[in-house]
Amino acid sequence: MLDTYARRITALQQRVAALDLGGAIIGTGAELAYLTGSWSTSHERLTALVVPPGGYARLFAPATDASAVAVVGDIPGVVVETWRDGNEPYTRIADLLADGPVALGSSLTADHVLRLQMAGEMGETVLAADVLSDVFAVKEQEEVAELEKAARAIDAVHSAVPELLVPGKTERDVADQLEQLILKEHATVDFVIVGSGPNGANPHHDFSDRVLEPGDPVVVDIGGSLASGYHSDCTRTYAVESMPDRAFVAAYDELRAAQLEALSTARPGMTAGELDAVARGRINHAGYGVYFSHRLGHGIGLALHEPPFLVSGSDTVLQEGMVFSIEPGIYVPGQWGMRIEDIVVLEAHGARPLNLAPKNLLG
Amino acid sequence: MLDTYARRITALQQRVAALDLGGAIIGTGAELAYLTGSWSTSHERLTALVVPPGGYARLFAPATDASAVAVVGDIPGVVVETWRDGNEPYTRIADLLADGPVALGSSLTADHVLRLQMAGEMGETVLAADVLSDVFAVKEQEEVAELEKAARAIDAVHSAVPELLVPGKTERDVADQLEQLILKEHATVDFVIVGSGPNGANPHHDFSDRVLEPGDPVVVDIGGSLASGYHSDCTRTYAVESMPDRAFVAAYDELRAAQLEALSTARPGMTAGELDAVARGRINHAGYGVYFSHRLGHGIGLALHEPPFLVSGSDTVLQEGMVFSIEPGIYVPGQWGMRIEDIVVLEAHGARPLNLAPKNLLG
Repeated sequence: MLDTYARRITALQQRVAALDLGGAIIGTGAELAYLTGSWSTSHERLTALVVPPGGYARLFAPATDASAVAVVGDIPGVVVETWRDGNEPYTRIADLLADGPVALGSSLTADHVLRLQMAGEMGETVLAADVLSDVFAVKEQEEVAELEKAARAIDAVHSAVPELLVPGKTERDVADQLEQLILKEHATVDFVIVGSGPNGANPHHDFSDRVLEPGDPVVVDIGGSLASGYHSDCTRTYAVESMPDRAFVAAYDELRAAQLEALSTARPGMTAGELDAVARGRINHAGYGVYFSHRLGHGIGLALHEPPFLVSGSDTVLQEGMVFSIEPGIYVPGQWGMRIEDIVVLEAHGARPLNLAPKNLLG
Repeated sequence: MLDTYARRITALQQRVAALDLGGAIIGTGAELAYLTGSWSTSHERLTALVVPPGGYARLFAPATDASAVAVVGDIPGVVVETWRDGNEPYTRIADLLADGPVALGSSLTADHVLRLQMAGEMGETVLAADVLSDVFAVKEQEEVAELEKAARAIDAVHSAVPELLVPGKTERDVADQLEQLILKEHATVDFVIVGSGPNGANPHHDFSDRVLEPGDPVVVDIGGSLASGYHSDCTRTYAVESMPDRAFVAAYDELRAAQLEALSTARPGMTAGELDAVARGRINHAGYGVYFSHRLGHGIGLALHEPPFLVSGSDTVLQEGMVFSIEPGIYVPGQWGMRIEDIVVLEAHGARPLNLAPKNLLG
């Protein structure tokens, strides 16, 4: 992987130079892991990869973490520079940068951002995720392959859901079983949502002691991570044993149509806002617009939620190789909720869904 | 607790007004929990408490989290304002602020910081932890009482350590037992460090399969959280069964003397850098200065590490009611390490240690 990281950092540096940026400063988390393989964290002590437009990239890390980050120094073109308490690295970092706007990683916290902005001669700051989206949001083939493996893994879990949704069981019972199934297919469980009946109307409900009844609609949104760090995330809406009432089924047919329309419309060159509008327009037209209360989707990779965000009004241009969710939902407070979510990779001629689990209410 | 939160927010607002700040914007985490009781998190969607110099405080949160944050709206003087995807709240927040520098909570991430800085007519940004330290770093009596309970809890765990350090056991064996003991006394385990022999020389080592031998020095640094969210954090250095060699014991005597000197010298009105220099000067004088590779200590409360940071050169003034660690260490790479850490509350006439575990190598 050392050569992979070297290649990624070189690509970032070339973009930094091409855009006349002063440099990029990437904090800990998914962006740093993508560039270096390191998931090191350091909280109030700054750990950051500094990439000027030319020359070495430097990982700054607290001396107390020297052994944890030493391996990053094995990446060709990268030097590890540890700093000791009392010798904060902000000025040193500012001195390494060229003139021009400086791209900051999204995860840097305000204590670090403000000290960087005040250090030395640093230029204007911009978000790396905005100006360097072709580096961070466009996935390499190997990454798409991992995300596809993750999608296969969560599809396998979904294939077991219909038989778990038995009247008399609680949401918690189902969630416990889902955790075990997710762990069989992944290295870790990221989240489990089992929202039955009115609980489905809260998009961030997890699970409760509510007992399942025949005809209940149930939103099941689950995800985990592979050992490689890539995430899965897939939602299906099910019915317990028998079909819910006609009003629900009519809305569900519209939701499915809207989700499929977004899937089939997505193209490189569209903006994220335009794709959001495709699904939203269809749901609005069917009269459920006020109940579609969140964005259409989010990027996914080494982070569960990452750019691009498919949100109304966004002018982020969708590019070939981006991987993101398409997940419209309809939530009627106090009654029920529904959501259908696939992860897709955007290819030259359209979106290829990585999730293949069926979308029938009875599984 | 609602009145407590109202009082704290009022105190913050009065400081904001007194300092002619435009307002304070506090992100999720310990600072928000201190002000509102909420540990809600929202990642790429902004959740923040906005406190202008007068009028209502407003918690901005994504509509998807409305039910999770509703309780914050019950705090007198606080309004919850949810926002939907596509209607990002940055401009709305900027419009609520008065003229003057805006204090940002440390936990806000760069994606939010930069969008806030670009929104509307917002003034210069400064760190809330710097300009509002009397609100966040000075603890109330009830908080000191909780931190004292937490110190009692971890002291109880330390009292069991000497009998756990038996030749033939691994660091991991000891760490497993310590986890159980910490859980008996706390709601959660925060961290367990068992650094024996040369592993003690890495201040951020956790534990390994190294087998304990007679005469090994062992750094044991452990902490947990109470249900109230307040943390414990206490380090002692032990010897397994028999005393380590004379070189180690001589260094340990100097370390203990330096730690006690810092404990007895601390006074309100000193700077954090001055107190760091007390312990560092003593250790330098004894010839171990190069091996004391980290700061003297850190604040503690609802966060495990928070301001004030007792670091060389810091001009942060120590105030009555601050609670922080005093934890000098000496680390000789490849040989051994040692650290002694107490949490103290700074009172009018000096530091009162909350940890009372003995500091003898054999326990």
